[in-house]
Amino acid sequence: MKNKAVFYHAGCPVCVSAEQSVARAIDSSKYDVEIVHLGQAKARIADAERAGVKSVPALVLDGNAYHINFGAALSDLKA
Amino acid sequence: MKNKAVFYHAGCPVCVSAEQSVARAIDSSKYDVEIVHLGQAKARIADAERAGVKSVPALVLDGNAYHINFGAALSDLKA
Repeated sequence: MKNKAVFYHAGCPVCVSAEQSVARAIDSSKYDVEIVHLGQAKARIADAERAGVKSVPALVLDGNAYHINFGAALSDLKA
Repeated sequence: MKNKAVFYHAGCPVCVSAEQSVARAIDSSKYDVEIVHLGQAKARIADAERAGVKSVPALVLDGNAYHINFGAALSDLKA
């Protein structure tokens, strides 16, 4: 069974760079990678928070949040 | 030809978690992943700096540095 990976972003330049490199480098034979744009899918912000995401871009792998560089704080996306 | 990915760490708990999740999730059919412990391989700190690494753990993919959460500043590893 594949594990779940969720890449959260908000369309910022830092996010796009991380998506194109890090998210695409993930082994798709091991992980189902879902890309979530929190600026467009605000209903998913609560999911991201529960996983421990504080800022975007972030990758949630096996339930752990990994913040990749810094694009925007999650709190700014709620505005 | 495979691209080069370098995962820099310093043995800290944040680093080990990122290594076990993020570094191992990288598609080894696309990337040759090298793991470098900067606490043990201080000679590699200059390489990391040139790639734009400011803190560990960090992943350098296609020449771009992606800082993953925060374990230790590179400057602290030189001490």
